[in-house]
Amino acid sequence: MPGRDGVVRLAVDYGLVRDALAERDATAFVHVGTCDDPVLRYLTRASDVDGELAVCVTPEQSMLFAPDAPAAAREAFPGDRVVPGGGAIPTGERVAVALEDLGRSGTVLAPRTIPHDAALYFEDRGFEVASTLIVDDARVAKTDAERLRQRSVQAAADRAVARARTVLRESDPHGEREGAHSGHGHGAGGDGHGDANHGDGNVDDPRDDHLVFEEMALTTERLRREVAAELAGAGVDPGVVAVGAGTDATPRSDAAVRPGETVVLALAPRDRDGYHGRVVRTFVVDGDGGWTRRAQLAVDGAVDAALAELEPGVDLAAVEREGVAELAAYGFDDPDGAFDAYGVGLERRERPLDASAELEAGSVLALDALVTGPDGVLRVADLAVVTVDGAERVGTADRTLVP
Amino acid sequence: MPGRDGVVRLAVDYGLVRDALAERDATAFVHVGTCDDPVLRYLTRASDVDGELAVCVTPEQSMLFAPDAPAAAREAFPGDRVVPGGGAIPTGERVAVALEDLGRSGTVLAPRTIPHDAALYFEDRGFEVASTLIVDDARVAKTDAERLRQRSVQAAADRAVARARTVLRESDPHGEREGAHSGHGHGAGGDGHGDANHGDGNVDDPRDDHLVFEEMALTTERLRREVAAELAGAGVDPGVVAVGAGTDATPRSDAAVRPGETVVLALAPRDRDGYHGRVVRTFVVDGDGGWTRRAQLAVDGAVDAALAELEPGVDLAAVEREGVAELAAYGFDDPDGAFDAYGVGLERRERPLDASAELEAGSVLALDALVTGPDGVLRVADLAVVTVDGAERVGTADRTLVP
Repeated sequence: MPGRDGVVRLAVDYGLVRDALAERDATAFVHVGTCDDPVLRYLTRASDVDGELAVCVTPEQSMLFAPDAPAAAREAFPGDRVVPGGGAIPTGERVAVALEDLGRSGTVLAPRTIPHDAALYFEDRGFEVASTLIVDDARVAKTDAERLRQRSVQAAADRAVARARTVLRESDPHGEREGAHSGHGHGAGGDGHGDANHGDGNVDDPRDDHLVFEEMALTTERLRREVAAELAGAGVDPGVVAVGAGTDATPRSDAAVRPGETVVLALAPRDRDGYHGRVVRTFVVDGDGGWTRRAQLAVDGAVDAALAELEPGVDLAAVEREGVAELAAYGFDDPDGAFDAYGVGLERRERPLDASAELEAGSVLALDALVTGPDGVLRVADLAVVTVDGAERVGTADRTLVP
Repeated sequence: MPGRDGVVRLAVDYGLVRDALAERDATAFVHVGTCDDPVLRYLTRASDVDGELAVCVTPEQSMLFAPDAPAAAREAFPGDRVVPGGGAIPTGERVAVALEDLGRSGTVLAPRTIPHDAALYFEDRGFEVASTLIVDDARVAKTDAERLRQRSVQAAADRAVARARTVLRESDPHGEREGAHSGHGHGAGGDGHGDANHGDGNVDDPRDDHLVFEEMALTTERLRREVAAELAGAGVDPGVVAVGAGTDATPRSDAAVRPGETVVLALAPRDRDGYHGRVVRTFVVDGDGGWTRRAQLAVDGAVDAALAELEPGVDLAAVEREGVAELAAYGFDDPDGAFDAYGVGLERRERPLDASAELEAGSVLALDALVTGPDGVLRVADLAVVTVDGAERVGTADRTLVP
């Protein structure tokens, strides 16, 4: 395995596609979509290109049909030929005409999600369109080059988790009193800062406490921005950064974080080649060590038990059973406990996904454990890669609740 | 117009869709895709949802078919009913079965990009699938709520431009001498810092100078990360942040920025509802005022001339002609000068796009001028909204070359 990320070019094994063509007596594989479509991205390595692209693989050549300014696409494309331009002609029609011009006929293989208009352009020219899973199948086990990218983006996720810990650790858990006083004009005369019993019942209610970071209330949105900026500064696309606190799991709310409640940080950053990392952590500032302690042991144990279960040939149902059993051993039975294992790659959630899916060496999976309690949710997820005889974790962020 | 961004809910006028159903004697509008698909996003307002979604609008109701955990989707959906779950059943099939269960039959309208398998599930159940541009048409003119979001994300883009200016302004344009010395072991004995003529010919070559920011070489990748972190910290998705320097316009290279060369920063950040901003700026540190000065006047004039041309009823070709004429007036004829005007919204490039497209009040456009010279590219783009009797700029970043 090469030593440095980014140095290893993401190759594409067009041979796999050609084997499928031979097996099904087809004349070409085609797909049309944006560069965020995982099948198109896998076969073309195009990124940051606006508009509609197409890929076409025949037994003799592999072609990328790109919009008018394909410099970036041309550079990244590992295949034979980049066909630029096209103007107002629909991409599907361009590919159909090109295949016709090459003298091809018969069956064209395509993913089931090929745009309907593209399929009709092929049918209009006498081709038969048949669906194939060949690229989806190829994406299940990652190559060395793909795994290097996922290790690298996961390292950025670890840095972002560390940033969240720092922000929470440096926050004052009893900031509401001062904040409320100055904000609502109660502060005149300088009443006792940090005095928990100075007779202002409403403000003293511990449920009204909230964290203060750098002299402003720490809200879930502020924490989200701090974490997203850390990811962007590490050179990756922050993607969905979800921060929920306590019983409010609504990702778009902007509540002040309160001491004692769980804060769940769910990250799925994406590297510039489109590969995702995955980490979920839960923090509690000034917790009382009640159910959160037991919940922490449960999710910890569940992720570790699932990790120990991973190896080629095992099905996903068995992995999830291990996780669920561990949660139950700590008293978190359905519906209070849930365990989820799913593939991570060019999509945040991808195959292996079905319970019956048998694991392959090279697959990268998220192991995701969640329990709900009286005051909120506690959730931990880690990333792992299936090896020839087991699995190893990707990423090193620790799981302690205390930031 | 409401006063605060984010307060105004993004409404959806399902009435437009229903008018199209009546006009074409159709029973429903359907589409299937991920929440990054602009048509699906426009009709459902779903974001951050993994997996395949579908939307279905009948004369009586509007439905969102969501994957298993649709809390976020449910909250955002402005329509009538969220249908969760579905497991392994393909989304297109679920919608077809649901329509059949509602006793519907006849023609189903869909965007041309509906996945082929979804179209086939409808046809298998006796529906006819006909394509429609109704949602694409509706997206061309933005509502107040949409424009507020674009103003807000453009304000974040302005902050990011300011951040780039700060980084470039605080960089030392003659850092190579020290950097090369320490890096390659020439530095022993403490030769004259900042002395341009100390006899080391290779290092003294001004072409080898590069900018140093916070004691490290300022590369295009470092500048990209600084800018992306600023955008993420402002709460928006950085999206594609492209930084090119000099004649190296390859967005994935990581060259040290050199004094005197142009640095082009192209931003298209996206807010959490999926709406984009657009700004492109060019900077020159320690420029000699040669062609860059003339080029700056040309692109400035071109963007302003195009802005002055915008009003409802004008076609895009006329706008681009104004821009091109202004570039030519400064001596930047084709192929040295290029002017591009295009719609910006849920996509980085969207309608109005065609030369023949007549502008409508409410459209948001990028005005994008570029000239090439001996030492690189100089490019400026601004965002504007078409009003009932003209246009106004969105965003306030100034266009000076000197950071």
